[in-house]
Amino acid sequence: MPDYVPGLEGIVAAQTEISLVDGANGRLVYRGYVIADLAEEMSFEEVAHLFWFGHLPNRPELDGLAAELSGSRSLTQAAAAALDALPKDADPMDVLRSVVSVQGVRHRLEKPNVPAAIHVTASFPTVLAAFHRRRQGLDPVKPRPELGHAANYLYMLTGTEASPDLVRALNTYLVLLADHGMNASTFSARVTIATLSDMYSAITSAIGTLKGPLHGGANERVMETLLEIGEADRARDMINAKLKQHERVMGFGHRVYKTEDPRATILRRHSEALGRRTGQLKWYEISREVEKTMREDKPDLYPNVDFYSASVYHMMGIPIDQFTPIFAISRMAGWTAQLLEQYANNRLIRPESEYVGPPSLKYVPIDKR
Amino acid sequence: MPDYVPGLEGIVAAQTEISLVDGANGRLVYRGYVIADLAEEMSFEEVAHLFWFGHLPNRPELDGLAAELSGSRSLTQAAAAALDALPKDADPMDVLRSVVSVQGVRHRLEKPNVPAAIHVTASFPTVLAAFHRRRQGLDPVKPRPELGHAANYLYMLTGTEASPDLVRALNTYLVLLADHGMNASTFSARVTIATLSDMYSAITSAIGTLKGPLHGGANERVMETLLEIGEADRARDMINAKLKQHERVMGFGHRVYKTEDPRATILRRHSEALGRRTGQLKWYEISREVEKTMREDKPDLYPNVDFYSASVYHMMGIPIDQFTPIFAISRMAGWTAQLLEQYANNRLIRPESEYVGPPSLKYVPIDKR
Repeated sequence: MPDYVPGLEGIVAAQTEISLVDGANGRLVYRGYVIADLAEEMSFEEVAHLFWFGHLPNRPELDGLAAELSGSRSLTQAAAAALDALPKDADPMDVLRSVVSVQGVRHRLEKPNVPAAIHVTASFPTVLAAFHRRRQGLDPVKPRPELGHAANYLYMLTGTEASPDLVRALNTYLVLLADHGMNASTFSARVTIATLSDMYSAITSAIGTLKGPLHGGANERVMETLLEIGEADRARDMINAKLKQHERVMGFGHRVYKTEDPRATILRRHSEALGRRTGQLKWYEISREVEKTMREDKPDLYPNVDFYSASVYHMMGIPIDQFTPIFAISRMAGWTAQLLEQYANNRLIRPESEYVGPPSLKYVPIDKR
Repeated sequence: MPDYVPGLEGIVAAQTEISLVDGANGRLVYRGYVIADLAEEMSFEEVAHLFWFGHLPNRPELDGLAAELSGSRSLTQAAAAALDALPKDADPMDVLRSVVSVQGVRHRLEKPNVPAAIHVTASFPTVLAAFHRRRQGLDPVKPRPELGHAANYLYMLTGTEASPDLVRALNTYLVLLADHGMNASTFSARVTIATLSDMYSAITSAIGTLKGPLHGGANERVMETLLEIGEADRARDMINAKLKQHERVMGFGHRVYKTEDPRATILRRHSEALGRRTGQLKWYEISREVEKTMREDKPDLYPNVDFYSASVYHMMGIPIDQFTPIFAISRMAGWTAQLLEQYANNRLIRPESEYVGPPSLKYVPIDKR
């Protein structure tokens, strides 16, 4: 019997052409392109094209894909009905998992392909925005086909067109989070598709996995900490008190990056810029103080992508419980691309378990126990 | 960079006290008890007790658990509404995945525990039976609290109480399939819960993973083959023709068992007995001929659990597209038990991927491409 590998740490479970997490050098690479070069240049749709088709689009290709995405934003009748039936105080990640699952109900097993990737990707913002409207007692806002993925989500959420600043900030975030090598949600989706199941089943697995606070849920916890601190000059004392009590401060450290997470570097810049432009610099300043205090205590622990995304979202006016769902909107590009990759060269993913239970026991029928 | 391990074959991803798949000796063991001793003695509820509480119940303990299970069979309002909204020709596994996900919608993250395991386990037969009634244009049948898990499912499916023979056959099947060490659906559920997500999210992952024809979907494929053959004396020629064309014959071979799957041994017996009692021996005879023909061609390839469950189900009058869902009803005991185990001693399950994409490329903005 081989040794048990807790958490499968250090085991290579897949080969991928989609992204490289270069932990030693603090680089994230999408199909050969360094993220720092792309994040403020490309639209989410361009990244999706790069992932799904293997190359950056030219203008007609990009327009074509954007049109297909914007033409696939509506929910099926069953998905709309399921959404309407959900309680208003539901966790949006539970809503997303359930409505996307209903959206994927089919008569027979369908093979994963790019059209399926487009359809499931296009539906996420519709589900989340419609649910958010509904729980406020407002009517859902119909998508606007001429708006891109980021702009249309903000539009459906609020009913008014967002400023170019906000759209740009959200788009950068969607690009930055679109894929990240192997991670728990991508992995669960690959395990699901590897039985030759369908794309919606695999995406449903990914959503449920992303939900956990050790994965996508972390950015919401970061924001709760920032809100608890409330003012930049209280940050140092409060963080030191937490550290003294061995309480975990969320948003720091990463299993792979040994330097700063390159996405955090870009989001820190956005946090500051957005703070200045919107008169909410305080959230950037609190974040900065938390970071400084943490780094003094633990010099090897860097802020990760969750840390600076929290203040960015908050300044954009996005409710805390939509933070993880937006992570899902972004990661859809990577999830679907890695699923197509898994399916194209599939092998059932089935590790072993080690039995550590009781040795052989003698069975006694219930009435003689 | 360590080597890529395709399919994670031979990697130990978890320790478990729930079951041991002893491939070399053809034994399946539940917490120390050999399955061959239990399968025709114990009820599904007893196995669930053994899994969840770590020991076989005495009579009051078993009655207590059975009452809790039978008291948790109803769907939430949202789950019932989602079920009603689904198209009648939907794949039952998609229905199960979606309605169970809706059933698990909560206001906030809930910790996995035995009550959650009981609730989600109790809901499966209700979802599946109600959907099957609905698609036939019939009203759902209310559960009968005095009936056990197997008997009540058959009752809700048909509206009449099943004969003791059928209940016994289904119960044995539910016991036999209740856990099986590591397997793709259990593994996907563990990956999901390991981010500290909730039990319903993890079970939703498991359902989507089980759906694939390389996992739970196999028994439906076996039945399609038996129906295609139609008569025992046609089996040999048809199987030989398939083998000649290198077509895969489903229901044979297993990554772990090097001898016959012990569950197949028991189900073969049930298949024959049920055939004799119900005047449908033909499905057993066809299966037997297929097995003989396969073994002559490939002496090391044994029938697996999917092979003999197909004829058993069919003789019980269960529609083919409910075969995989019944597998899910059974495996719920093991899924939930392994989730409790994972959660009690958790570590994020996050392997690595190997980047095999293009080397460093220079980014060119879209209008200069």
